[in-house]
Amino acid sequence: MSATPYPGGCHRRYDVIIVGGGPAGLTAAIYTTRRELKTLVITMDIGGQALLAKNVTNYPGFLSISGVELMQKFYEQASKSGAEFKFEEVVKFEERSENGKRYFVVKTKCAEYEAKALILAFGKTPRSLNCRGEKEFLGKGVSYCATCDMPLFAGKTVVVVGGGNSALEAALYGSEIAKKVYLVHRRREFRAFEKTVDEAKSRENIEFVLDSVAEEIKGEQFVKSVVIKNVNTGETREIECDGVFIEIGSEVKKDVVEGFVKLDPAGQIVVTNSCETFYPNSDEIRKGVFAAGDVTSTPFKQIVVACGEGAKAALRAANYLQAEG
Amino acid sequence: MSATPYPGGCHRRYDVIIVGGGPAGLTAAIYTTRRELKTLVITMDIGGQALLAKNVTNYPGFLSISGVELMQKFYEQASKSGAEFKFEEVVKFEERSENGKRYFVVKTKCAEYEAKALILAFGKTPRSLNCRGEKEFLGKGVSYCATCDMPLFAGKTVVVVGGGNSALEAALYGSEIAKKVYLVHRRREFRAFEKTVDEAKSRENIEFVLDSVAEEIKGEQFVKSVVIKNVNTGETREIECDGVFIEIGSEVKKDVVEGFVKLDPAGQIVVTNSCETFYPNSDEIRKGVFAAGDVTSTPFKQIVVACGEGAKAALRAANYLQAEG
Repeated sequence: MSATPYPGGCHRRYDVIIVGGGPAGLTAAIYTTRRELKTLVITMDIGGQALLAKNVTNYPGFLSISGVELMQKFYEQASKSGAEFKFEEVVKFEERSENGKRYFVVKTKCAEYEAKALILAFGKTPRSLNCRGEKEFLGKGVSYCATCDMPLFAGKTVVVVGGGNSALEAALYGSEIAKKVYLVHRRREFRAFEKTVDEAKSRENIEFVLDSVAEEIKGEQFVKSVVIKNVNTGETREIECDGVFIEIGSEVKKDVVEGFVKLDPAGQIVVTNSCETFYPNSDEIRKGVFAAGDVTSTPFKQIVVACGEGAKAALRAANYLQAEG
Repeated sequence: MSATPYPGGCHRRYDVIIVGGGPAGLTAAIYTTRRELKTLVITMDIGGQALLAKNVTNYPGFLSISGVELMQKFYEQASKSGAEFKFEEVVKFEERSENGKRYFVVKTKCAEYEAKALILAFGKTPRSLNCRGEKEFLGKGVSYCATCDMPLFAGKTVVVVGGGNSALEAALYGSEIAKKVYLVHRRREFRAFEKTVDEAKSRENIEFVLDSVAEEIKGEQFVKSVVIKNVNTGETREIECDGVFIEIGSEVKKDVVEGFVKLDPAGQIVVTNSCETFYPNSDEIRKGVFAAGDVTSTPFKQIVVACGEGAKAALRAANYLQAEG
């Protein structure tokens, strides 16, 4: 099926709009297009958090493959199958009706698109520190992805902020590449595997800065230092560094879906086993809106789990459209 | 992790026994072994119903691959990861306890195995006609898989029994290979795509035998004929043929799980969104028993959906074992 956009005009109509281009969204696109549904994928990137995996060994079919390579295969498959892609940021969803038929409007920063069904699969986004300088120096020393960006800091000094597995792993990875790694964590205890913590403690070029938070990231063109405050004593200290890796977990960017679908206490979209969503604060199924992958309440954030959910959401959406005529 | 069987003795103990070696079971095995759980897969074959797919184009990561090749990759991955395999038929499940600790016994026709957790992933089995001669001539002209066995009947005469998409597709495939195809269906209307039915009607070497059921399959060493009865008139007719393809759908082989876990009206194992099962006729979760793939109530029988569910079942089982100590 070809997915030619409607020429001209600011409204483009699709059968299905999939928001998100990670494993769930791309799998959904493979399935909706094969059901001959005119499909648009709106996403900021291809691959989502799967891109962060250097080496995927638990996706069935590949003994070992990088997240980037696997996601390129998914993208190629969805594109060849007829899915259209727009690399834009969604800012709002609206439901409308025309002649008694329900449809949805997806507003991005650039345009508006319309579809008879939505599949929300935009995953999770790295959590922000919300400290001064964080936004200003993003891409100028501040990074949310050690796997992607640590190689840029060979022989330099980096600060890793966080106390979970991803922070500890970022510190370990950093200790192999950078000259010196400071690991800043707001508590004394880590929420990480003991083995990983022990390994980090054994590395001579990792310095632990505990009970401490980052107050400000400073620099000129690029990052030059981080101001750290001890949460017990209130004392501050300025650590000179070239890079700051923020590894404090990820969260659903819930502002665009709050009030549109039901969320769980963690901000995840609540779904049935068939990837249907609910109206906010209700047990009523929200017709025409489906969700899949890390953005949902489905447990276990794994590529293959997201894929399975993406396929279910697509097939449920196809059934819904068939029933609606 | 190596998965050395306990030498000698008829009881072998595992952390997890996975029953079934299709997409769900093999994915579960990839995941349990990576969680360092001693894993046994008990199955009759590798691949299950995925083997029937000549050309899989909707499994993310492969533009096109045969079901056989894809399942070999899954098997290799699960084996390399440390899963042990037994090619046996399960006849019974039992729950026991020792020092207050729950464990399960899986009885096959050959042996007994023990595990702390079970993952039921044995999919569906082709439905039987239950007519005389069906069992006797299985593999001697009688087949449940046109994709697998039709090539053996080049230039010969075959009977296809059934009225759904798989029967119509078997008839179409047969018409390209065999000299003559009889399509026997108990009703006048088909439960298949109109396009497929029309295509079958247009083939000169397909003869429709409607309102009719197969009463008996006859032969000597191999199939020689099928006795057909018209359900309206009661008249019988004997059709000479070399092969009989039974394509009347598939079902859960529920005799081994009935009374062990809760089933839905279609005989499928009822599961939560985390692949937990329930006690029969109850809303109480059955601890230690998980299920995934086509055998469950989860909608959409697709390879990638089964894989996602297999991963969830494995991770839930791992969490359960961790919590139980």
